[in-house]
Amino acid sequence: MPFEKCEFKIRLNKTKIEMQKRGIELLISTNPANINYLSGYDGYSFYVVQGLVVLLDEPEPIWIGRNMDVPGALFSTWLSGENIRGYEDDYFQSDTKHPMHFFADILKERGITNQRIGLEWGQDSFNVTSYNELQKKMPDCKFTDASFLINQVRMIKSETEINYMKIAGNITVNAMKVAIDAIGEGMRESDVAADIYQTLIRGTGEYAGDYPAIIPLLSSGEKVSAPHLSWTNRRYKRDDIVSIELSGCLHRYHTPLARTIYIGAPSQEYMDIVNVVQEGLNNMLEFIKPGITCAEVAEEWNKVLSQSSVTKESRVGYPIGIGYPPDWGEQTVSIRAGDTSILQKNMTFHVLPGLFQAEIGFVVSESIRITENGCELLTNLSNDLIVK
Amino acid sequence: MPFEKCEFKIRLNKTKIEMQKRGIELLISTNPANINYLSGYDGYSFYVVQGLVVLLDEPEPIWIGRNMDVPGALFSTWLSGENIRGYEDDYFQSDTKHPMHFFADILKERGITNQRIGLEWGQDSFNVTSYNELQKKMPDCKFTDASFLINQVRMIKSETEINYMKIAGNITVNAMKVAIDAIGEGMRESDVAADIYQTLIRGTGEYAGDYPAIIPLLSSGEKVSAPHLSWTNRRYKRDDIVSIELSGCLHRYHTPLARTIYIGAPSQEYMDIVNVVQEGLNNMLEFIKPGITCAEVAEEWNKVLSQSSVTKESRVGYPIGIGYPPDWGEQTVSIRAGDTSILQKNMTFHVLPGLFQAEIGFVVSESIRITENGCELLTNLSNDLIVK
Repeated sequence: MPFEKCEFKIRLNKTKIEMQKRGIELLISTNPANINYLSGYDGYSFYVVQGLVVLLDEPEPIWIGRNMDVPGALFSTWLSGENIRGYEDDYFQSDTKHPMHFFADILKERGITNQRIGLEWGQDSFNVTSYNELQKKMPDCKFTDASFLINQVRMIKSETEINYMKIAGNITVNAMKVAIDAIGEGMRESDVAADIYQTLIRGTGEYAGDYPAIIPLLSSGEKVSAPHLSWTNRRYKRDDIVSIELSGCLHRYHTPLARTIYIGAPSQEYMDIVNVVQEGLNNMLEFIKPGITCAEVAEEWNKVLSQSSVTKESRVGYPIGIGYPPDWGEQTVSIRAGDTSILQKNMTFHVLPGLFQAEIGFVVSESIRITENGCELLTNLSNDLIVK
Repeated sequence: MPFEKCEFKIRLNKTKIEMQKRGIELLISTNPANINYLSGYDGYSFYVVQGLVVLLDEPEPIWIGRNMDVPGALFSTWLSGENIRGYEDDYFQSDTKHPMHFFADILKERGITNQRIGLEWGQDSFNVTSYNELQKKMPDCKFTDASFLINQVRMIKSETEINYMKIAGNITVNAMKVAIDAIGEGMRESDVAADIYQTLIRGTGEYAGDYPAIIPLLSSGEKVSAPHLSWTNRRYKRDDIVSIELSGCLHRYHTPLARTIYIGAPSQEYMDIVNVVQEGLNNMLEFIKPGITCAEVAEEWNKVLSQSSVTKESRVGYPIGIGYPPDWGEQTVSIRAGDTSILQKNMTFHVLPGLFQAEIGFVVSESIRITENGCELLTNLSNDLIVK
């Protein structure tokens, strides 16, 4: 297992403290990243209903999933066998039975009938039917929203987590270098993506690379304005701008990075934009330290932008860590105006001031850890525009 | 675009007929595969709230997503610009605003105030908070469940879709051959996974490989019982059983395949199991034709199994087609006892009688299309046990 049992217990205790503050006696988490954080479970089985039940007065959570995934839970979690419970296959994608009926049966076994239960209403892993079916079977329980309770607990990282993120960052840099080498006039987008994937998954000599929660994003030419489209069989052309955003992954921890390539000779006008964005990024990185708010960081970016012709609407950063498809962000706070969340030591962020605009697109980022007095980069790669 | 506009209009009409049957005036789909099916939209942006609104009396659906993804929608859909609507970034991961408020505003623009609206309650892309926020803004509408309405429409494939699935099948076979070549005593799991990914993404000379919705599944040794765990840095050993399940992907269409490798000399006892599973698979493939039920197909499998010592609880097949992480299955019907869904021409299935058991694990499958009188394989690769 990538973590000691005591680290899982610390995480569980932090979660329970948060539950107590909110008056939640029992928490059901269905988000695969939250399940992984508290139990270690790491299966590509989140297309079925599965979850982790945290009871305030029990020392271990209960993992509930499909029978087929019970062996995977036994291999990958710190939980004792009696707290790993599988439902039979006829609960799965059925018109008459629902996995939440099985959840309800397990809760009733433990005497849960009218408690206050926290649910992750705002997580895509907990859909409306799951909620309806659970309510039907537990009509006397009081349900309340605890969507991002565990996500919030995840924000401050341990030394082991940070170490994994640095190794993931090495994988990121290796893959970025492969991309930078491979991209050029006449090369095919999908061939570049293929080589990136190979590098991400191969990992290092010691560590297997894990699959990233988001595909390598490789938009180019007019599609620089559409950063979430995937690669095609198009070949790169002279004067293409190619924006690359990718992340290595180790034990589900991500350390993403974005860089931009210009194939040909960029104009002075374009270089002016590059300089503005880089200055904005550097301003933020110099400013970041514990005690300030996300909004204050965004302001450092806006100070630089306001003196230029460049505009940007979307946020310029978000916390990172454990992720499963489709997101490596922690979905808690954002670096943008209005977000008064306070930065703390050992939070980790992807600071990403991307301009996703055709003709003038330029995307550059750093993954960082907040230190005692400032921040440190989790990767080591020049963030200049790459001219090829 | 991978499909003609007229193919999208046929899909839309089929959807509207189904809506009419169920008395649904307006359907909101948030499932990325369903959005892709009706609009062509193909962005890795389904970590944010996005959706497609189908109105019975309008010729085009309305795509709604994050502003940042509007260019991607303009590039990848057949919709006119006025039917592509983006919400500002402050709706996104916010405590005060929710993207469903924007959806409600768009609906009100069209005079929708008290209609009967179908929602995908059972899809993970539509969470409880989305439902609550939509209800709050549209208190006079009647909401009803239409979870798998579009998934059902997707089941019967067009010639173009089948053609793409055959090309995806070629990519699958290429990747499987790479896996078979690479796996052997002393090789590292993650290196094999890396080479598989490279082959899947590179695609063919003509077509870029798309990212599969499920990672290549490569369980081996004692973890053959845990088919959804991912590769590690372990090296294969003599007498390892290695089960491989993977899929090529083209324009989001999948054609998965499972094969098993034995490193060393399998025992007669193990070969007996292999023969049972292969016979069970062949029995099903010979039996499959339009007009029979899924349960009847499962019975053909059980006939063979009941004469052996082998047991299996989970389903032995499911429909395939468009998929986004985390699933390439269509989530409609299953080949198992009790499922009385009737097979029809041009439905496509992954027939997968996997035994996921340590020591005796053997997994083999075929992806098929149902023809006029039977079925055809979508790939061409021996399904014998591979002994290395």
